Amino acid sequence: MFAADPILLTPGPLTTSLRTKQAMLRDWGSWDGDFKQITRRVLDRLLGLAHAGEDFVCVPMQGSGTFAVEAMIGSLLPRGGKLLVPVNGAYCQRIADICRYMGRQVVTMDVAEDGQPDPAKVAAILAADPAITHVAVVQCETTSGILNPLPEIAAVTRAAGRRLLIDAISAFGALPLDLREIEADAVAISANKCIEGVPGAGFVICRREKLEQAAGNAHSLSLDLHAQWVYYARTGQWRYTPPTHVVAAFDQALMQHEEEGGTAARGARYAANCKVLVEGMRELGFRTLLADRIQAPIIVTFLCPRDPAFAFQRLYDLLKAKGFIIYPGKITVADTFRIGCIGQVGPEDMTRLVEAVKAALAEMGVRDCAPKLAA
Amino acid sequence: MFAADPILLTPGPLTTSLRTKQAMLRDWGSWDGDFKQITRRVLDRLLGLAHAGEDFVCVPMQGSGTFAVEAMIGSLLPRGGKLLVPVNGAYCQRIADICRYMGRQVVTMDVAEDGQPDPAKVAAILAADPAITHVAVVQCETTSGILNPLPEIAAVTRAAGRRLLIDAISAFGALPLDLREIEADAVAISANKCIEGVPGAGFVICRREKLEQAAGNAHSLSLDLHAQWVYYARTGQWRYTPPTHVVAAFDQALMQHEEEGGTAARGARYAANCKVLVEGMRELGFRTLLADRIQAPIIVTFLCPRDPAFAFQRLYDLLKAKGFIIYPGKITVADTFRIGCIGQVGPEDMTRLVEAVKAALAEMGVRDCAPKLAA
Repeated sequence: MFAADPILLTPGPLTTSLRTKQAMLRDWGSWDGDFKQITRRVLDRLLGLAHAGEDFVCVPMQGSGTFAVEAMIGSLLPRGGKLLVPVNGAYCQRIADICRYMGRQVVTMDVAEDGQPDPAKVAAILAADPAITHVAVVQCETTSGILNPLPEIAAVTRAAGRRLLIDAISAFGALPLDLREIEADAVAISANKCIEGVPGAGFVICRREKLEQAAGNAHSLSLDLHAQWVYYARTGQWRYTPPTHVVAAFDQALMQHEEEGGTAARGARYAANCKVLVEGMRELGFRTLLADRIQAPIIVTFLCPRDPAFAFQRLYDLLKAKGFIIYPGKITVADTFRIGCIGQVGPEDMTRLVEAVKAALAEMGVRDCAPKLAA
Repeated sequence: MFAADPILLTPGPLTTSLRTKQAMLRDWGSWDGDFKQITRRVLDRLLGLAHAGEDFVCVPMQGSGTFAVEAMIGSLLPRGGKLLVPVNGAYCQRIADICRYMGRQVVTMDVAEDGQPDPAKVAAILAADPAITHVAVVQCETTSGILNPLPEIAAVTRAAGRRLLIDAISAFGALPLDLREIEADAVAISANKCIEGVPGAGFVICRREKLEQAAGNAHSLSLDLHAQWVYYARTGQWRYTPPTHVVAAFDQALMQHEEEGGTAARGARYAANCKVLVEGMRELGFRTLLADRIQAPIIVTFLCPRDPAFAFQRLYDLLKAKGFIIYPGKITVADTFRIGCIGQVGPEDMTRLVEAVKAALAEMGVRDCAPKLAA
């Protein structure tokens, strides 16, 4: 069964290790001391990975990464606050949507999907609008795969005396995020991205002082980080039924992350995956959406060939038959598809993937991989 | 490893079958057709179990049962609506709390924790307050384990021309719920209760017409059932990353539920578990909080003995060492503990449990199990 399972080259859920999945072969009582120890170990490890000192706590949240991001915004942006979001993709846009659902003030700074937000422009917006209290940044925007300039935006936010909220969902555990160097009030994390756990849980690292002030902020009972934190401090438990199997798997995934060598080693493996992927696909004639210097080693967007024999769904099906699951595009300005570099995969898998793409193109009769649009 | 795992006699997470857990030994692409088929099969089966015809759709929701209940209330109670909740425990109270977070009008009808709400009183409140648009009922209130009079409250709600929302989290799949007989707008379901899946996903069966009218109701992006439904109808997918492993396990759990004989057979097994448990504990001298006629075969509340040698945590630890995880009490008026009847356990397990309790009492030196308070 396992040998036949396709490799997921997607932005998460992704391919996890058998050891991680096998941790789910046990039922845990959510009230029991053994499970409390798992939760505590997970929260402590996440704080350690972010170099978060005593000023921070880590709060668990059920659901997908979006739930953790919504919980972060809803709990830590005060009802009278105003949020600035530089937007260069769907996940940035989603943060603005969250604010609109909650009836909180939000302003976006719109950037092209293939470009980084300019920190100087963020600084100018903050200077021009003293009502803005917080800035939200998506560290790696999965829509395109772009690396956003988190340290630079953090610096201008701090200089302007505003507070920073970070969506690190797609990057945490592979790209550096050091809370000793980046001043932030919160960081949202998912179980099923670069830590290589399975989906169903998120976590938010919160500055303790800000979380203590957050009582009454939340718009939602389920998504109230302050209430969850108070409950955890008293009981060591999740406030509502935790996804016990998912958390047990995440605990194992975190151990393997450490055994691999932590964030630096994980990031290096993904960078090697990304390099083999991009070079191989370029040899086949594909073009990447992004310039290499702003490409995060998480997921790569390729432009669809203009050759009329090319069809994404056909490529998808052919690659699936060869053991690889890829991902559709999400940007709005060009026909694209995406291939992830994350999960329990190595450069050798990427080499095999490129060979599979080459074979699939031949089967499709695609002769020219030059894109429809100039990038 | 498996033989040594304790049996969970808790209200969920609970003991699941190995087959259910083994379904999690595979990684699924959330965008892939294979996973879409799993989701579709799960939604269709849930609709079937509720005897929900073409008037209904089933909408998936990440998180614990509380997330599904909050999504149901937030999406289907209009912003100008007013909700009546008969409250005889923490899960009823939680629905009122959800409304207060959202700023929606709610009124509670407070009932003793060991008593059922009187449908005639519900009718009287509805008659006296024409502003009330909806009634929410918890089918089985896990705080005590009480069965609430769902058909009777549904009847008076319908007679008063108001709409019904059902929290069936703890009961669905074991207690009957037939939407041909009970007129309701929505039913909230959890993966990790009587269907015997693992925690991390919920589902809400919604009356299609009411869901179509629900655009703009929701207070939360993540918990918006209308948006999830529109997205599913277009793509066959969850709107945000689904807990793929949890859903694959739930799919297997639903198949086993059908193989066992459906809701009637599942309910009969739990009733047999409950009977062996209650009779055995009474033989040891314990008293149940509830009268038998209002006891649901889901979880049983026992009054703590007044014997000073009794301590719940000691009983818990001794039983855990013997292979059983029980649950603390939750009612506010008496010292109690709870033992669940649900999960992959049978009457023979309950017989063994009672023997283990007897042995534990001897180890503790408890000689008299008469309760502290007269029930």
